[in-house]
Amino acid sequence: MSGIFEGKTDGTPIAGIVYNTNQKSKDYSNIKNTPRPGHGDLCWMEKYGIYDYNGGGRGSGRTTISHVIGGAIAKKLLKTQGIEIISHVVQIGDIEAKYIDYENLKGNIDKNNVKCGDLEAAKLMEELILSKKEEGDSIGGIVETIAIGVPAGLGEPVFGKLDGDLAQILMSINAVKGVEIGLGFESAKSTASEINDEFHYDENNDIKTRTNNSGGILGGMSNGMPIVSRIAVKPTPSISKVQNTVDLKKGENTTIEISGRHDPCICPRVTAVAESVTAIVLADHMIRGGFIHPTNLNKSL
Amino acid sequence: MSGIFEGKTDGTPIAGIVYNTNQKSKDYSNIKNTPRPGHGDLCWMEKYGIYDYNGGGRGSGRTTISHVIGGAIAKKLLKTQGIEIISHVVQIGDIEAKYIDYENLKGNIDKNNVKCGDLEAAKLMEELILSKKEEGDSIGGIVETIAIGVPAGLGEPVFGKLDGDLAQILMSINAVKGVEIGLGFESAKSTASEINDEFHYDENNDIKTRTNNSGGILGGMSNGMPIVSRIAVKPTPSISKVQNTVDLKKGENTTIEISGRHDPCICPRVTAVAESVTAIVLADHMIRGGFIHPTNLNKSL
Amino acid sequence: MSGIFEGKTDGTPIAGIVYNTNQKSKDYSNIKNTPRPGHGDLCWMEKYGIYDYNGGGRGSGRTTISHVIGGAIAKKLLKTQGIEIISHVVQIGDIEAKYIDYENLKGNIDKNNVKCGDLEAAKLMEELILSKKEEGDSIGGIVETIAIGVPAGLGEPVFGKLDGDLAQILMSINAVKGVEIGLGFESAKSTASEINDEFHYDENNDIKTRTNNSGGILGGMSNGMPIVSRIAVKPTPSISKVQNTVDLKKGENTTIEISGRHDPCICPRVTAVAESVTAIVLADHMIRGGFIHPTNLNKSL
Amino acid sequence: MSGIFEGKTDGTPIAGIVYNTNQKSKDYSNIKNTPRPGHGDLCWMEKYGIYDYNGGGRGSGRTTISHVIGGAIAKKLLKTQGIEIISHVVQIGDIEAKYIDYENLKGNIDKNNVKCGDLEAAKLMEELILSKKEEGDSIGGIVETIAIGVPAGLGEPVFGKLDGDLAQILMSINAVKGVEIGLGFESAKSTASEINDEFHYDENNDIKTRTNNSGGILGGMSNGMPIVSRIAVKPTPSISKVQNTVDLKKGENTTIEISGRHDPCICPRVTAVAESVTAIVLADHMIRGGFIHPTNLNKSL
Repeated sequence: MSGIFEGKTDGTPIAGIVYNTNQKSKDYSNIKNTPRPGHGDLCWMEKYGIYDYNGGGRGSGRTTISHVIGGAIAKKLLKTQGIEIISHVVQIGDIEAKYIDYENLKGNIDKNNVKCGDLEAAKLMEELILSKKEEGDSIGGIVETIAIGVPAGLGEPVFGKLDGDLAQILMSINAVKGVEIGLGFESAKSTASEINDEFHYDENNDIKTRTNNSGGILGGMSNGMPIVSRIAVKPTPSISKVQNTVDLKKGENTTIEISGRHDPCICPRVTAVAESVTAIVLADHMIRGGFIHPTNLNKSL
Repeated sequence: MSGIFEGKTDGTPIAGIVYNTNQKSKDYSNIKNTPRPGHGDLCWMEKYGIYDYNGGGRGSGRTTISHVIGGAIAKKLLKTQGIEIISHVVQIGDIEAKYIDYENLKGNIDKNNVKCGDLEAAKLMEELILSKKEEGDSIGGIVETIAIGVPAGLGEPVFGKLDGDLAQILMSINAVKGVEIGLGFESAKSTASEINDEFHYDENNDIKTRTNNSGGILGGMSNGMPIVSRIAVKPTPSISKVQNTVDLKKGENTTIEISGRHDPCICPRVTAVAESVTAIVLADHMIRGGFIHPTNLNKSL
Repeated sequence: MSGIFEGKTDGTPIAGIVYNTNQKSKDYSNIKNTPRPGHGDLCWMEKYGIYDYNGGGRGSGRTTISHVIGGAIAKKLLKTQGIEIISHVVQIGDIEAKYIDYENLKGNIDKNNVKCGDLEAAKLMEELILSKKEEGDSIGGIVETIAIGVPAGLGEPVFGKLDGDLAQILMSINAVKGVEIGLGFESAKSTASEINDEFHYDENNDIKTRTNNSGGILGGMSNGMPIVSRIAVKPTPSISKVQNTVDLKKGENTTIEISGRHDPCICPRVTAVAESVTAIVLADHMIRGGFIHPTNLNKSL
Repeated sequence: MSGIFEGKTDGTPIAGIVYNTNQKSKDYSNIKNTPRPGHGDLCWMEKYGIYDYNGGGRGSGRTTISHVIGGAIAKKLLKTQGIEIISHVVQIGDIEAKYIDYENLKGNIDKNNVKCGDLEAAKLMEELILSKKEEGDSIGGIVETIAIGVPAGLGEPVFGKLDGDLAQILMSINAVKGVEIGLGFESAKSTASEINDEFHYDENNDIKTRTNNSGGILGGMSNGMPIVSRIAVKPTPSISKVQNTVDLKKGENTTIEISGRHDPCICPRVTAVAESVTAIVLADHMIRGGFIHPTNLNKSL
């Protein structure tokens, strides 16, 4: 609606609207007075004294469309600098994908419905998700994001660290309950001699590390290796199984069965969001770090 | 040095200086041209073209003293609202502490050197740490932070979510590689019917949940339950064991043995930092959320 | 489009769209390659390498509609605190309005086309504006804004001073070239003994000043007296008279006669913008200062 | 105290302390309960419920030392880009300096005590100031700041306009009551045909304007011409003449005679502050606009 002129950004904010064409508000009328367990409904009520229950309001994954739009623009920008980002599902429930190298990962992600690089695991994940759907339940998982081509030196210590900014935006994605960089929680069990990424000069005389346990970030700054993050996605809280909750109007305990179209697992969709918010943070730091001239963006896009 | 007048804050910035009285810069002279594996030295060099190696610069845990000072003030403020925060060690290497209820936790934390609420685990943790010290190595761990008395409604969706802000500041602590809220990565393996926190009216007719798998945060806002976070702390990268690195001056591969006083495990010290930064974020949101009048702070402190 | 639910704000951003129904883009085709003197066209070209000349882009007063919408909401909020704001024209060209007390000012502003409180001056101002229109020229003026009922203590020294924030937003209004608080430039000619506002206890034992040369702001904070600002508005740069400019395509000097509907004096319209941005800054500081609980806004609006 | 390593900035915050070696706190004891007219004392009391009266607290011009230190660094940075800034006194009371071209201005400013480029006016200004000092009174004035060599395209419309940011920081200087860019309030009396700066190609085929009534800023962005601002400085409110005020302790009207060392006119000193804050804003926008790479600053300084 604004910001684009003759196919180029013109320096004004880029605005767009996505109309929700298949929303059925009646689907949500039953949650008007009965907050859904695992959802923010009640927090909204308590914070603002009012809650727009239609479509689940801000609690709905729908809101992430704006992240994806912003991310699409950020990716165009990063591409001009040789940076590319992919997100993929590495775990659903207790099914873990095995390691797949980057090139095969890129090739496989879109060959299956769960956005997993390990095609055998993908089959099992899909079966698990469908069985949970049968039960009127949902299941969680883990999404990994890899950014390659990121120059060393992104991140502004102490209060604008790259890992801090990534953690904030990734944790802010609906349903995310955990964020890891590199080895993450695995490093809690390790010794420095096991996980320190040792430096050496490669054949081009560039300083590299053979391992990437740091996930490409040291001291809050990128070190030139791929930026690797993982997020824990909880099972979609909206399920059709009977759950205990309260009736705010009657002031008494009650139960709720949530109808409507709900994903039994949102991990495959979350990959697009994780990819997008990571792109936004990296593009922002490319600009803050002086790697790109904002005034020249429209020429490079 | 400023900001305090006649024992009260006077509205001007509170400034203080802590002089490092026992720094031995010679300890660091050997890292002038040989970046330490697992440290940000090289990132600083590549970002700024210069690096103050004395005392490890910003890469040193020393910098967190400012977080602790800020946290001390934030805690005084939160205390006036009945909010209290404790951090404790729940894991060192593969030794996990068993669950301890809040009151015993508070009592036990300072009864041992590793700030662990489970006194038997604490003994084993201490032994493990000392053995690693013997080997000239170091070990990682997990620190949990619990904030009780936090009102429902803290957090500003979409871009100032409480879990997002906590994740940012916790991930920004030196050596932290992962952040979890509530069940965290465990929720990836779970179904909604297993982990949704169901609502009910308690005896005082307050809406409560029996479980707290959400860690007190839903939709980016506090829900009135305790705020629970966990951070993965990597082993201190500075170790005396021989490691491979590069000599930036000679432009060739070399090795480094880092002398100087280095903690074989920083988790016990990180508890103070995690507690402080959590206090800062909560105090900030108490103000942003209108629960406290900044203009009245000096009367309440 | 969002943010309002059942007649109340629901905590989500309030979004709206105003479609420009009577824009005639052809009006602007002639400025495609010939930057208009007194306009930012050329700066946009040089900054962004591209310029959306339709409707004058961001250089057009049209953009201030968003300020007015935001201001309308801010005013509703301030009204709940007994704060009201009016802007009026005090000078057009060399015609100055004489002092009119607040109540008569309120009554008179809408009784004339130039939003002036002095009805006789208003007639002369209108004549002057129309004569300039005849000549295909335009004329500048001064707009004064008065906010009453503002409590003492708004403003956050050193970097969030109330006068600093007002100056920024007022100077950011298109065509504004000067901002004064209270006596403004007059104080440059004065002595302290002439203009210091002396304190005294009034009949209600409230501390008041008889004069208000400070314009209600001292040390960057409100002092409880009316907040008074004045802005210098330059003549609308778009005029139909022949002006010298350059042809960016041919790279040679040329002339321009700007057709289209252009106000010969925008001061009357600027009153709505000045009123709105002042309301936004005051509402913001009422929240920052803890005078209002954001979480309760929807109850008070 | 930090931020400088081996003579270069090292990416960490630059911190310094200036101890006030000749403060005589007794000078201020008499204002403990009697707010000084024209000062922010009472606002501080009302906002924070407490006021550090020693040295006049934040109301004292002493606080601007930090602006000057920051400005000194910003100027070093701008110098690498060929930008230079000078501030000079153009009016004291009703004595106005006549126009002096830039080169002579630079030469004359430091040849007199009032930092005025017109040496004859300077004499009269000095006499006026001294006569006011005799009377135990003070006098105001106007300070002009000129920045040359600023590239076109600095400023981020709508909310980070260059004139808006300059107005904010200039109005935030203690005792400043008005800010003008270019013609400022004079433009209120003018027509567009009189003051629009017309464009032409100069001998080097650069687009220039013969006049600079816009003060180098159009549409909130720099246009390549010198950036010219003027600020109205009120007379120092601290005077030894008897003034009416209130005794907050006794709750009754009283009078005050302010002893201590007070400048009868602070304009000459304000030149250093105006110059510094202008440098800070321009340096900030040079970085935001991508004209400078922050990561390379330490190499260029």
